[in-house]
Amino acid sequence: MTDRSPLAPTAFPDLPDIAGITRRIAKAQYKTWDRCDLTYVELAPGTAVAGVLTKSRCASPEVDWCRAALVLGRARALVVNAGNSNAFTGDRGRHAVEGLVASVARHLDCQPSDVFVASTGVIGVPLPLEKAEAGLAAAFAAEPCGWEEAAATIMTTDTFAKAAVTRAVVDGKPVSLVGIVKGSGMIAPDMATMLGFIFTDAAVDPVWLQAALARANARSFSCITVDSDTSTSDTVLAFATGAAGNVAIAHDDDPGADAFAAALNDLCLQLAHLVVRDGEGATKLIAIEVTGAESDASAHRIGMSIANSPLVKTAIAGEDANWGRVVMAVGKAGEPAERDRLAIRFGETQVALNGLAVEGYDEAPVAAHLKGREIDIGVDLGLGDGRATVWTCDLTHGYISINADYRS
Amino acid sequence: MTDRSPLAPTAFPDLPDIAGITRRIAKAQYKTWDRCDLTYVELAPGTAVAGVLTKSRCASPEVDWCRAALVLGRARALVVNAGNSNAFTGDRGRHAVEGLVASVARHLDCQPSDVFVASTGVIGVPLPLEKAEAGLAAAFAAEPCGWEEAAATIMTTDTFAKAAVTRAVVDGKPVSLVGIVKGSGMIAPDMATMLGFIFTDAAVDPVWLQAALARANARSFSCITVDSDTSTSDTVLAFATGAAGNVAIAHDDDPGADAFAAALNDLCLQLAHLVVRDGEGATKLIAIEVTGAESDASAHRIGMSIANSPLVKTAIAGEDANWGRVVMAVGKAGEPAERDRLAIRFGETQVALNGLAVEGYDEAPVAAHLKGREIDIGVDLGLGDGRATVWTCDLTHGYISINADYRS
Repeated sequence: MTDRSPLAPTAFPDLPDIAGITRRIAKAQYKTWDRCDLTYVELAPGTAVAGVLTKSRCASPEVDWCRAALVLGRARALVVNAGNSNAFTGDRGRHAVEGLVASVARHLDCQPSDVFVASTGVIGVPLPLEKAEAGLAAAFAAEPCGWEEAAATIMTTDTFAKAAVTRAVVDGKPVSLVGIVKGSGMIAPDMATMLGFIFTDAAVDPVWLQAALARANARSFSCITVDSDTSTSDTVLAFATGAAGNVAIAHDDDPGADAFAAALNDLCLQLAHLVVRDGEGATKLIAIEVTGAESDASAHRIGMSIANSPLVKTAIAGEDANWGRVVMAVGKAGEPAERDRLAIRFGETQVALNGLAVEGYDEAPVAAHLKGREIDIGVDLGLGDGRATVWTCDLTHGYISINADYRS
Repeated sequence: MTDRSPLAPTAFPDLPDIAGITRRIAKAQYKTWDRCDLTYVELAPGTAVAGVLTKSRCASPEVDWCRAALVLGRARALVVNAGNSNAFTGDRGRHAVEGLVASVARHLDCQPSDVFVASTGVIGVPLPLEKAEAGLAAAFAAEPCGWEEAAATIMTTDTFAKAAVTRAVVDGKPVSLVGIVKGSGMIAPDMATMLGFIFTDAAVDPVWLQAALARANARSFSCITVDSDTSTSDTVLAFATGAAGNVAIAHDDDPGADAFAAALNDLCLQLAHLVVRDGEGATKLIAIEVTGAESDASAHRIGMSIANSPLVKTAIAGEDANWGRVVMAVGKAGEPAERDRLAIRFGETQVALNGLAVEGYDEAPVAAHLKGREIDIGVDLGLGDGRATVWTCDLTHGYISINADYRS
């Protein structure tokens, strides 16, 4: 077991209950461990659902299932398996998902398409259906549990349980949004992170919820990377029970739509940051703010080029203000950039301007900034109004140690 | 000083002299070290030149200079500086290149455009022109040196001097091709590697030489990666003195064109492999053969996605046949792929077929293969005839150690 990340929050947050959501956990024993590894969340009838899923061409059957079920926009249950991703397992993997979903549908007397499922862990081993069904039976019979137990049960190589909460007032009703998330390695979400689940008591039309989630995702989960490796199982699902009693949000100009969207954006960003804070081997959280690009999309690609550069990430691990490596990463991004307009700052200190080093800049505040846990790099392209902020962590011996002997 | 790479050849190769090429080295003292760091190569009048250069948007002024000079296709001299890349240094960097070139042009009584220059090392510090000129003066006065001294003088973080030779018969005349190369980190050449220089006594028209070099490059330097980070200084130049006396090759159907192109391809591949063998922290050379893709270009992108995956590279470092990570890297490449047609082998052993693990495959030969120095991974997409082979090295603690404190 790896030590708790030095970037972890000091405590699990205080989370409110969400009306219409009941959590239960059980031991399916997907691996030879003595911990709960199956999470079962029951959702009140009428719950709306939206989701963003990995763009991997080798997505898991769970991802395929969710993609199809999302079209209908309604959910009654979520099952999350830890320790086995069920990815790249052919027909046996598909049958396991269908069997598991059928068990839940029988239990709740609902449609299979109302049941959502996500699994992470080792790739290439079919999910053992007997274990899943035994785990589900145990979960059906278990007492409901709190958010922290559920957040801990979905973890694999994570070193701490991750959750966040935001609130809004919609149509005069106070609503809460709670999210739990897991992920630590194989993190370069392409529209979604490994696994993230958002629950709210607001009433929201599923089509609008999908649009709001896609927008929130573009500024949060799609802006983080630990190691540039995109998972086969990335899934973020948002469930809205409607128990708060507001008139359902269905359009951008409906009462409370702005407030709800702001709360959703904030929640996704908090959850995304928690994943980077648990990046494998991470000792520093790095924010990279790109401005002055030709477009927001261009700024995002340049930011990700910097955030995925092993030379930038090892320099930060070594507390070295090696801005030349930032220049290199801008140059390789394949995006419009002019060497002689580039400006770079570390923390508050401008270290390069107009394509060359700032003569005699004060190195003391730069060195002090780099010794901290949260590193802030600014890159201005000097070309246009495009901007993006992305987040990553440093690349350390810890990452190598964790990944050179993960399977064995 | 890092130890010699465990993947290094046992000895520097035995290289023939190339008529029309004279090498000299000197101490310009670009860093506070007691070693030669300036290489000066004089080329006989009439030497043809071709080159491929980095596509980085933040290329060094040396790269800009070579790009412009290559248009004329003739060369009289090459200068290579080690320890300072002169990249991202604005007008001062450009003036340093122009001053250095002017000194050589005066010495040889040639055009500045006949002089080629390349520099690697720290980014962001202008090349000190006084040191360059003093170094050049010393080189002009020095005795000629051998290939090994020149190959050692262009090194920066390299752990061994790299060179190769191939031969061909052109128009009835025997010709030789000798190449020297440097590079160890920041290696993901985008049309060229860090620095490579090829010399031949064959007579070759510069336009045809450029086409032949571009083709050779596409199958060699553009197929290697150490760390996915593309340098600002990548440069490969090929010089043909014509001293062999053959009728100059100017078209694909000229006598000896095929033989020369084959020798050039072979040389570029040998040189590219030497760079991967000196990958920072490398303990294993990994060949990734992708077949059955929709096109060769698609196969190349899938191969590079696998070769750049830190999770694949750390698995190989740990001697773990974790083919699930190969699946992940295929999936994230963004190229056509169908999970249920994918086949993967390690060495000679098929481990996955038709989208799932081969039941009960013999793990012993896989484990034995992974303990070796040269690892061979095969991926078949089952879609078409597209194929590519790319090379990389494993990702180890050595890479982190080298790069977390390189500048300091």
